[in-house]
Formats: sequence, structure tokens, C-alpha cells
Amino acid sequence: MGRRSLLLLLLAFLTPGAATPVPPALRALSSLHLSTSFRSRPAVDMKYSIHYIQQKVDHFGFHTDKTFKQRYLIADKHWKEDGGSILFYTGNEGDIIWFCNNTGFMWDVAEELKAMLVFAEHRYYGESLPFGANSFKDSRHLNFLTTEQALADFAKLIKYLKRTIPGARNQPVIALGGSYGGMLAAWFRMKYPHLVVGALASSAPIWQFENMVPCGVFMKIVTTDFRKSGPNCSESIRRSWDAISRLTEKGTGLHWLSEALHLCTPLTESQDVQRLKDWISETWVNLAMVDYPYESNFLQPLPAWPIKVVCQYLKNPNVSDTWLLQNIFQALNVYYNYSGQARCLNISETATSSLGALGWSYQTCTEMVMPFCSNGIDDMFEPHSWNFKEFSDDCFKQWGVKPRPSWIPTMYGGKNISSHTNIIFSNGEIDPWSGGGVTKDITDTLLAIVIPEGAHHLDLRANNAFDPVTVLLARSLEVRHMKQWIKDFYASLRKMH
Amino acid sequence: MGRRSLLLLLLAFLTPGAATPVPPALRALSSLHLSTSFRSRPAVDMKYSIHYIQQKVDHFGFHTDKTFKQRYLIADKHWKEDGGSILFYTGNEGDIIWFCNNTGFMWDVAEELKAMLVFAEHRYYGESLPFGANSFKDSRHLNFLTTEQALADFAKLIKYLKRTIPGARNQPVIALGGSYGGMLAAWFRMKYPHLVVGALASSAPIWQFENMVPCGVFMKIVTTDFRKSGPNCSESIRRSWDAISRLTEKGTGLHWLSEALHLCTPLTESQDVQRLKDWISETWVNLAMVDYPYESNFLQPLPAWPIKVVCQYLKNPNVSDTWLLQNIFQALNVYYNYSGQARCLNISETATSSLGALGWSYQTCTEMVMPFCSNGIDDMFEPHSWNFKEFSDDCFKQWGVKPRPSWIPTMYGGKNISSHTNIIFSNGEIDPWSGGGVTKDITDTLLAIVIPEGAHHLDLRANNAFDPVTVLLARSLEVRHMKQWIKDFYASLRKMH
Repeated sequence: MGRRSLLLLLLAFLTPGAATPVPPALRALSSLHLSTSFRSRPAVDMKYSIHYIQQKVDHFGFHTDKTFKQRYLIADKHWKEDGGSILFYTGNEGDIIWFCNNTGFMWDVAEELKAMLVFAEHRYYGESLPFGANSFKDSRHLNFLTTEQALADFAKLIKYLKRTIPGARNQPVIALGGSYGGMLAAWFRMKYPHLVVGALASSAPIWQFENMVPCGVFMKIVTTDFRKSGPNCSESIRRSWDAISRLTEKGTGLHWLSEALHLCTPLTESQDVQRLKDWISETWVNLAMVDYPYESNFLQPLPAWPIKVVCQYLKNPNVSDTWLLQNIFQALNVYYNYSGQARCLNISETATSSLGALGWSYQTCTEMVMPFCSNGIDDMFEPHSWNFKEFSDDCFKQWGVKPRPSWIPTMYGGKNISSHTNIIFSNGEIDPWSGGGVTKDITDTLLAIVIPEGAHHLDLRANNAFDPVTVLLARSLEVRHMKQWIKDFYASLRKMH
Repeated sequence: MGRRSLLLLLLAFLTPGAATPVPPALRALSSLHLSTSFRSRPAVDMKYSIHYIQQKVDHFGFHTDKTFKQRYLIADKHWKEDGGSILFYTGNEGDIIWFCNNTGFMWDVAEELKAMLVFAEHRYYGESLPFGANSFKDSRHLNFLTTEQALADFAKLIKYLKRTIPGARNQPVIALGGSYGGMLAAWFRMKYPHLVVGALASSAPIWQFENMVPCGVFMKIVTTDFRKSGPNCSESIRRSWDAISRLTEKGTGLHWLSEALHLCTPLTESQDVQRLKDWISETWVNLAMVDYPYESNFLQPLPAWPIKVVCQYLKNPNVSDTWLLQNIFQALNVYYNYSGQARCLNISETATSSLGALGWSYQTCTEMVMPFCSNGIDDMFEPHSWNFKEFSDDCFKQWGVKPRPSWIPTMYGGKNISSHTNIIFSNGEIDPWSGGGVTKDITDTLLAIVIPEGAHHLDLRANNAFDPVTVLLARSLEVRHMKQWIKDFYASLRKMH
């Protein structure tokens, strides 16, 4: 129960804006993120035009010939027909405009690569809904929400662009994506190497699947981030769980805690305790993902190196339970109230559910089965084992489908991917998702870049004066390889003619 | 009408035993082929065991979790755990036992490669029917008959074999196939390079699709075979069409022709004329496919170099229409009555329809859209243009589906496949399917082998004393490459440990 919800949280927040519907609190967060993010559009000239393409609902079956409108964005200010390139963002589980605005790297390198930028929305997210409002109605309508269908959409879109945009036909296309979008970029290069000359897969945990990495690696990295960001910081958090349990065992505990944490809606039932813990855990996880070196507004408006700021409140684990929880409140407040505008903290608001949230929850219940666990020893969380049976039963209850945990490794090769070429896997070392990522070179064309100070796909974000030198190096290496792929493409084109 | 049926014939006979239901005559042929083929099991020790694996009906959707039994054969007499290999036949559109018995090459090389032989049946063929007797009922039941689903079956089967057969886990698997099965072998290596170290794709016309080769190339090769096999041979056939038309314009023509050709059922209506022409055309096409250098029994019991024998009756095109048609009968009789047992020739028998036939007809109406045409100038056939609209309408009428001619090139790369590795494309130069095949090396690991005297996948057939030296060379080259793939596999395995 509570166990599952924690795990789902992790799954859900592969990229922000895509929360799972359990527990409801996250939906609120999720929609909040979306709205704040839209406001945070950078000052640089990021002008795009919006387009739609008719896609088959089912690329892999002919019983239905239905189509739907897939949305994509194009920015061609710096595109050159002569010697140019096409950078293709393989959209992930959310509104494509949001990803477009949060992938400043592509905008920053467009001129140097004479590149047209294309951002393709993932089916079942944003406006690209195969069955409109009914898309999430039941497993019959959701049946076409898979990575294979999404990649096929991308393939058809690229073919279409090459056919219809004068000058695009003989240009190299490079796939780029972050997080789940990074997985898609890598898988796209693996499955459609005739359509993209290479892929930049940033923070793409392609190995966070069955039997590939220990299920505890994610929470261990989150813990390391906190341990390194301040003395006793992770230890304070580790002790907080029992403190919460002890406090809430007493009659007035729920009330006291609701006050201490400034919760908008007081805790009333004992099952609220698990929801509270899940919500707090999720906060630490999110902080680990967005521990950026500068003030940012990705999931929330946050100070530079937010975990360091959080840890200033968590220096002393050897205090009373009430004191510890008051410190925890201060820490949470950094995340939820950096702007100083919040009047209370909300763990249970059931806002309009984001479609993205529904879609991702379904995907984790079908193909994207990522095992997570914690043990409270190597990490600062309460012990939660990975229970596939329980997970599967919950999925069936919620969506009427059964997860197939071995499918993604069968389809995309698992750890045995060395026959592919031209993929860069970039990872931030402090990003918990790096635990499931490719962090060592596999061959001389399947490269890993590790950014020691990097959080979740930091390299895909716009240049910033406070960027650590390691991310600058990573980006310049990425550009160098992309240029090489482009050069190789034109060389082989010349050889053919 | 007639136009379409000719084209469909070609489509249908990619491999024998899989005729399209239009025109009915072919079903008879098709079932005949199957039964004679079963009798033709070679004398060499080709013992296999029969197995079944539960496969998901839909690998690419989660709405249904239904499974079906896929059949596969295993022969492990020469398999060695130590340093061995697995040769995996990617079954095509027919009963897997028939393919097993007609792929002597694998049996001949098993000992040398210490190989386990696996023959996997293609879904919707033989016994591997996802919905049993209802599998071909309508487009809803046929929805899962695609190359992608078939490749996914193969992938799951390989993972299953490696998991369950002791000693198989760390062995290299090589995909082999002929004709459509050869396409599947090549595509399997392209899409699942983590599961097979290489592929031998024999007579695999992976380019016989939209905009890749001229639609007339197939009939041109058939014609060349006849032109080179005897003086005036192709010219006699070219003139026969008008002779038939002239003869059947007269009142008694149909009757006379029925007698002259010893047809079991006399021609009665004018539309029978087109059916007759289609049936004769198909005979010449089949002869071109099975123009083997020795007596064989693949589609029919036939003499060595059957086209040469046929052409002995077609030396003189400058004869009267009746004389010409009597000669045509003698020629047809070589194909249909080499055994001397036939009492008449049958163009319209509507025997029990072969499931394989139905399946292949559906496949050509969905993914496997191969344009064919003839012009009567570069070939000896009546002019037939490729009319996609008409083809598509007929498909919709027959199956309720619309063909997607650009899908296979989008999915499998069309001519742009140079980033893949370890595929041998072998082609017989006299095989009409070589026109859509890869006949030139693409890179130093994407190799083409052309066998000048080779008909349809001659190299996959068992060794024969009358094999021309070119096919012996081809086979030895194929074995050399397979050995290298196996060696490379074990070398990289050692490096990992």
C-alpha cells in the first residue's frame, strides 16, 4: 500500500509534470510545476511554430486505420539548407512546449550546427491524444501507448519532414532527449539508425529495469546527495521516519504534526501518516533531481544548490522528535516555499489530474516497469522491498493490464547493446537516475559522459553563468561528437553521388 | 481484375505453399506442393523434436494478455555445449516442418558449427495459430499478423531457449532464412542485434518495395531465364498470349483450348481466359524460381534444369496459333506432369484452402506491399502496370484493411541499412527474386553473394552432387563468415570475464 505509493512516486517523477495519480497530493504538485514552468520561459529568443501531423493510432496493426493529430514544434531561425542539420527532440511524458522551453541546450547550439530544431510530442501527452478526452478511459483506449508506437510516430514524422520541407531531405538528423525522452532518443537510434545519425541520451536510465541494476541504487544516490550536502543531513532524515511514527502514535500527534508542518489539510487518520511519509520522501527525491548549481525553476522555484540550503536545517539528528520534525518543516519549506508565497504545505490537494500523469502511470504498469527499493541502511529511507506481485496486482486493479517486466530488455537489448553506434549517454553523478544509466563507455561510438556536479539532465539546460566547468566540458564534448556525426553523414552522402 | 490476379500470384509465391486465394487454381497447387514436399524428406538423418512456447498474441499492446502456442523444432544431434552455436531458422509463411525439410544446408553444416538447429514457426502459419480456426476470420483476428509481431516471437523464443536449455545461455545465435524468411532473418539482425550475432538472408527481396527497384525487374529476370534456356523460348511464350486471345475469340476456341491443354475442367466463360493466362504465367514464374541444376521436388517433381526441358518444346514461335498452343501444353506438362501420373491439368480446383495462403494474402495487403509490373517488351508477359489504388481497393474488399506501402521501408530502413553489421545476402542470379535483393556488398560486414547458376535460395538446400561450383563456393563463404561471427562472439565473451 504505502510501500507501493513510494515506488510509484519515483516512477512518476522520471520527469516532472508527470505524476502518478497515487497519492493525490502529487497531482497538485504536478500541475503546479507545469504552470510555473510555463512562466519560466527564458529570455533568449526561443521562437517556434506549432504544427500537427496525422499519425496512425496503430502502426503495428491494420484492423484500425484511425489517425490522430500529433503536435510538434519547429524552430528554424538558424537552420541552413547548405550543410545544416536537424536536431530532433524525442518528446517524453508531458506537454512538448514544456520540454521545448526546458531544453535550452538545443537552442544554444542551433546556430553552431546550422540546425533546425524539432520537438515532437509523445502520443498520449500534451495535445497529442489519440482518442481525445477518451484516451485514458480504459485499457482499450490506452492500448496504443507504448514506446514502440511513440518511436514509430517519430520515424513517420522525420520521413514526413524530409519529404515536405525543401532542403531537409539530405540532412542528417540527430535525436536528443532527457530522462524518459533520453531513453527514447537512444532506443530510436538503436531501432531506426537509418533515420538518425546519432543520439544524445541525457540522464536516460535505460538500465533501470529487471535484473540490470540493484533496485536500491536510486535511493542510495539520493541519500549520498544529502549526506554530502551538509553534516548529519541524511542522518537527520533517516531518523525522522521513526520520529513521525512515534509522534503520531500518540493521540494528539496528528494534530501537532499538521501544525508543525503547516499542512493545509490536517492529518486525521492513521493512513495519512504513510501518505505524509511518501510525500516527504518524494520531496527529497525531487530535490536530488533538481539540485542545480543556480537558482532555477524546474519543479519548483529553488535556490542554487537547494540540498545545501535544505541541509542547513538538518544539522542535528540528536534532538527530540518534535524538534527534529520542526527542522524537517524548515527543510521542506525550502522546496515548497522558496518564493515565500505559500501559506501552507499541501499534501492532499486533488487538482485536475494532468493527462501526463495518467499516461505515465499506465506506462509504468505496462512496459516501463522499473524496480525500486530502499533498505534504510544504504539509504536514509524506510525499508521498502520491491514486490512485483503486489505491483502487478495494483496495476491490474487500476488499469486492467499486467506489467511485462522482461519486455523492455528483450526489445531494447538490456546491457547487450554494443553493436549499436553513435549514442552519447550523459549522466549527472548526483542525479539519482544515473544509477540506471550508462556511465561507462561501451565502445568508441557508444559513449558515456559523467558530470560530477550534474543533477537530472543538467547538460540539456540552457547555458548559465553558474554552470560548473564539468557541464561545460560535457556540452562541448557532445557538440564535438554531433559535429562529427554530421560530417560523417555528409562525407558518405558525397561518396554516394 | 486479371491484372491484379497476376500480380497477386507473384506475391503469393514468394515461397511455395503460400498461395493467395485469388484465383482459386492456386490453392490447389499450393496444397499439392505441401503434400508432395512432405514426401520429399531427404534420406539424411534429419531428426528433430517438436516443441511449443506460449507467446503473447500482442507483444505491442497490453489490452489483451492472451497467449497462443507457437511451434518450433529442435535438432541437437551435433550440438556442443563447449564452443557450440545455435542456428535459428526464422520461419516464413508456411508449415515449419516443410521449411525444416527443405533447408538441408543447416543440417549439412550443423556438425562443423557444433550447432543446435532451431526452426521457429511464423505465427498464423502451420500450427501456430493465435486464434485457432478463427485466426483468419476477420481483420480483428488477423490484426496480430505482422513482421514486427513475428520478430518479437523469435526474440522471446531465443530468450526462452537460453534461459531453459542448460549450456545454451552463453552461445551465439545466428539467424537464417530463405525468401520471406530471409527478409525476417535480415530484419531480425537489424532490430535485435543483441540476440543474434549475424544473419544469413538467402534470396531475400528486402528491396522489392515501394520506390526501391523497378516494378518490372522480377518478370524481366523470369524472361531472361527462358531466353537463355533455349532458342526462341521466351519469344514463343510472348506470342502465346495473343494466340490464346485470338483462339478464344472464336466460338469453339474455348473448347479447343481446353482439349489442347488437357484441362480437367473446360473453359466456358470469357473470363476464364484471363484465369488461364494467369495460371500459365504463374507456371513460368514458378519454373524460374525452381530452376535447379538437379532433379528436385520443391514445388513439383521436376527434372534437372527444368526450363531447358520446357524450352525444348518452344523452339519455334513462327507457327500457327493452334500449333503454338500445343507446344505450350507440352511445356506446361513438363511442370505439371513430370511424374507422368497426371491425367489432366487443373487450373481451377478449389481445394481446402491452405492457412498459409490466407495469411500471405493478408500480409501482402497490409505490410508486404510489393509492386510488380510487366510491359511485354522487356519481358515475355502481357503488359500489366502496377496500380496501387486498384490493389488497395481489392485488399479492402477482401480483408477490410488498407495496405501501407511505405511502412516496411520506414521500419526496416529501405536502402539505407549501412549501419547494420553481420548480414549475408545471398542471391541466385536466375532467381527472379534477386531483382529485389541485395546483390552488392554494402559494407565489409553487410555482404552480398551472387550465385550465377542459382535459383530461389539454392544455397539453403542440401548438398547435391550436381550442385554447380558457384553454390559450393557460396556455401563455403557463408560458413566461413558464420564461423567468424561465432569466433568473435566467444572472443568478446572472454574479454568480458
